[in-house]
Amino acid sequence: MSDQDRRARRREARRPGGPSRSGGIKPIHNKLPFTEILSPEGVELIHKASMRLLSNPGILIVDYPPAREAFRANGAKVEGDVVKVDEDTLMHFLRMAPSTFTQIARNPANTLEFGGRTTIFAPVYGPPFAGSLDMGRRRATLEDFRNFARLTYMAEQMHHNGGTLCEPNDVDVRERHLDMLMAHITLSDKAFMGSVTHADNARDTVTLCRILFGEEAIAQNPATISLINASSPMRFDDRMFGALEVYARAGQAVLVTPFIIAGAMSPTTMAATIAQQNAEALFGMCYAQMLNPGTPVVYGSFLANIDMKSGAPCFGTAEDALALYAGAQMARRYGIPYRSGGNFTASRVPDAQAGYESASTIWPTIQSGTNFVLHAAGWLEGGLIAGYEKFILDLEMCGVVARLANGIRLEEEDFAWDAYDEVGPGQHFLGAQHTMRHYDTAFYQHKVFSMDNYEKWEAEGKIDPVVRANGIWKQMLKDYQQPHLNEAIAEELNAFVAQRRKELAERRPRTEWKR
Amino acid sequence: MSDQDRRARRREARRPGGPSRSGGIKPIHNKLPFTEILSPEGVELIHKASMRLLSNPGILIVDYPPAREAFRANGAKVEGDVVKVDEDTLMHFLRMAPSTFTQIARNPANTLEFGGRTTIFAPVYGPPFAGSLDMGRRRATLEDFRNFARLTYMAEQMHHNGGTLCEPNDVDVRERHLDMLMAHITLSDKAFMGSVTHADNARDTVTLCRILFGEEAIAQNPATISLINASSPMRFDDRMFGALEVYARAGQAVLVTPFIIAGAMSPTTMAATIAQQNAEALFGMCYAQMLNPGTPVVYGSFLANIDMKSGAPCFGTAEDALALYAGAQMARRYGIPYRSGGNFTASRVPDAQAGYESASTIWPTIQSGTNFVLHAAGWLEGGLIAGYEKFILDLEMCGVVARLANGIRLEEEDFAWDAYDEVGPGQHFLGAQHTMRHYDTAFYQHKVFSMDNYEKWEAEGKIDPVVRANGIWKQMLKDYQQPHLNEAIAEELNAFVAQRRKELAERRPRTEWKR
Repeated sequence: MSDQDRRARRREARRPGGPSRSGGIKPIHNKLPFTEILSPEGVELIHKASMRLLSNPGILIVDYPPAREAFRANGAKVEGDVVKVDEDTLMHFLRMAPSTFTQIARNPANTLEFGGRTTIFAPVYGPPFAGSLDMGRRRATLEDFRNFARLTYMAEQMHHNGGTLCEPNDVDVRERHLDMLMAHITLSDKAFMGSVTHADNARDTVTLCRILFGEEAIAQNPATISLINASSPMRFDDRMFGALEVYARAGQAVLVTPFIIAGAMSPTTMAATIAQQNAEALFGMCYAQMLNPGTPVVYGSFLANIDMKSGAPCFGTAEDALALYAGAQMARRYGIPYRSGGNFTASRVPDAQAGYESASTIWPTIQSGTNFVLHAAGWLEGGLIAGYEKFILDLEMCGVVARLANGIRLEEEDFAWDAYDEVGPGQHFLGAQHTMRHYDTAFYQHKVFSMDNYEKWEAEGKIDPVVRANGIWKQMLKDYQQPHLNEAIAEELNAFVAQRRKELAERRPRTEWKR
Repeated sequence: MSDQDRRARRREARRPGGPSRSGGIKPIHNKLPFTEILSPEGVELIHKASMRLLSNPGILIVDYPPAREAFRANGAKVEGDVVKVDEDTLMHFLRMAPSTFTQIARNPANTLEFGGRTTIFAPVYGPPFAGSLDMGRRRATLEDFRNFARLTYMAEQMHHNGGTLCEPNDVDVRERHLDMLMAHITLSDKAFMGSVTHADNARDTVTLCRILFGEEAIAQNPATISLINASSPMRFDDRMFGALEVYARAGQAVLVTPFIIAGAMSPTTMAATIAQQNAEALFGMCYAQMLNPGTPVVYGSFLANIDMKSGAPCFGTAEDALALYAGAQMARRYGIPYRSGGNFTASRVPDAQAGYESASTIWPTIQSGTNFVLHAAGWLEGGLIAGYEKFILDLEMCGVVARLANGIRLEEEDFAWDAYDEVGPGQHFLGAQHTMRHYDTAFYQHKVFSMDNYEKWEAEGKIDPVVRANGIWKQMLKDYQQPHLNEAIAEELNAFVAQRRKELAERRPRTEWKR
């Protein structure tokens, strides 16, 4: 296939209303005033504390000399494996990070703007297990992964297809990233995340994006965003910085996220925890800018806290919400898009606890103005389980907070003067002309939660919301239709994957694979 | 008993650490910045719209000529049963309402300040049914009422004992208010609410408070607060205004709350709904000031919305939260304490939906700065069921948001400098001195939600949180110890109640009892 043919086919593949069956999902435009839990002075106190932590004790970089060298070359102190960076150096690079950027998607209507007042929902990331009403909890498989890719594609509340929807344990660990990427690419037309399990896998991600979108397109705007976790406290490793380097050099977006269970990976106090998270996130984003100025980065926050008695991680707590809010303020201080939140719970199944905890995470998520929300659907047991029914229940919750983000409109029509003239005191508004005019858009319409009274609910068999959710995801998978992908591109993608599988199979299991 | 004896005994009954077994529950001091969903201009738009509604169409007062007369005497237009009041008249009286006031409790340590940054939690109010895992849903009884009074007394998350904890259907409707009041007075030593089912019952409430606290004490500070609902839209009736009049003249606090299911009792648009709610609340509070300037009043908001397809009421929605936030801003504009929120759900049992919806109400409740939170525990099926297990689960949620209200402390100690010196990058903080110093107060300790991993949870029988909650309320009732009440006062209360029962039994069932 000539380059010209390829470009033509790519254009066709991305034409709106073209081969893709999805009309495009618009992310949330958040009209709410963002909750500012810290005063402006508080924000500066956290900033200064982070600068102090970065200069001492500094950040440990494990098994990755190039990053230490890069920092040394840019004026940071390097003591053994520890890098100590001062405020001027750090802020010099941080200012190169764009405040907004665009991630392209196979369906151009699903192209996403990161930053500003936009909130993007993506599904759960990383669970080794899958869970459902039918099978309980078991090791996740590639078919689970594909199912979650299909469900995400179909869900209007999910704006982004996410990344490691669950771990496909039935696939050789050396090839998994290829199967996951191909599932996102072929089963959905929404934007997706890249592999970070090894620098080679990051390179494979970039190659697949090149085939799918073309060299030019992905040089202009990232086609992928990838999750770079700090090994908190104050540490990055070769695996994560190796992947970050590949993506940054290719101009692909990275999501630098400290992974903190407060009380274990940070002190028990929130001020220190937030300052440490800030230091770690800034350090990673700074490295991305050193490698390639202007690399699209997202300031990440993933924060839970331990139960002081048992040591177990807690989710949906007040402390986590406070840190989530504070993180959003810090990201805004630096003018960088923010990632946090989701529908978190420690519960193992979608019970009442899961409901309370999940809502307790997604409400601060939306009220903080978070831009990218990983784990917005399907999260159970502290992220260990990708739950089918939980996915469906969380979609409902995402729908509710999306409505919240609309805020209150105060146009003349919203004051309904004609309704009061028509109805008069003491009468109901059900049949009013104003009600008729607003019938279709008035109030969020629930899809999973039931408003039935006790009598109806009892007569219909006291159906648990989990049972309703079970029916919904099964019906969605039955109704699923794969979006069309240009055959020539599909062929090229498959050829690359086949070649890589061959190369990888010939190698001995790599010792550097860490789980 | 002489007046002097009585006063001495009352002092003794209220002595801290004295006869009462409860050491006192401090309400929440809310350190959060309050969410301002409306701009200052938006607040004024709502205010102006409310003023327009009050002048036309005005408020319908059903079967209660004295209120219409009072408004007419104070310059309002009265057309038939409709009162049309202008901004100057309304604001003239509204300015007489105190911005904060104190409700006394039998245990002085449980005395509560209404307004400002204080948040007070009280249990569910008004359900005709009781529900538990053991019995499902059935008509509530006096024993249910007493159980909820006991549980509320014991719950550290409940600052106020509430009012109609559930409807004691097994007691003659004419005497119920006496049994409910005596349950609050004798089974708890926290503050409680008065009866509003008839002006006579309001009088009985005031008499019981006089016996319990003394004439002087209740003239200084209210001993009771009572829920005066508007029969929305734009209507009050004789039952509610009759009770309001008794309480206002006795200087007892009233909670004026429009009861709005948006889309039915108000237009479908939020701007109109909020303006109407504001108009109704202001009108009721204005009447209280006309009757007795300085009457402690609370600006109430109870707002749900209908499901446009089925007409069923929805709870825990985004629309309800927006109205809740806006209502708090309006109350602050007028400098009056605000009541709203709770742990609302449409669900019939404490399932996942109940969790999502309840958290979706209590989060905006605390973030709005709501002062008095009725329905903070035990609410099911849109308020039709007082749920035993739901009560316990809601306590957990109240504990979480109480923690949230602490905000983030930024003292030097909170930055944990010594922990970073001690631990260094890459190491955990579990054994750090700083962690040891903060061990007891670090993070909210869950009492009902389980953080156990799947394996432990499975090994222990996959216990649902509802089952845990069932065990907890049963144990609480076993552990319950009635707070001591001065014998002479108890005797006097009982004598009054016996006399009233006799008088009431002699009357024919009153036709004006409305349910």
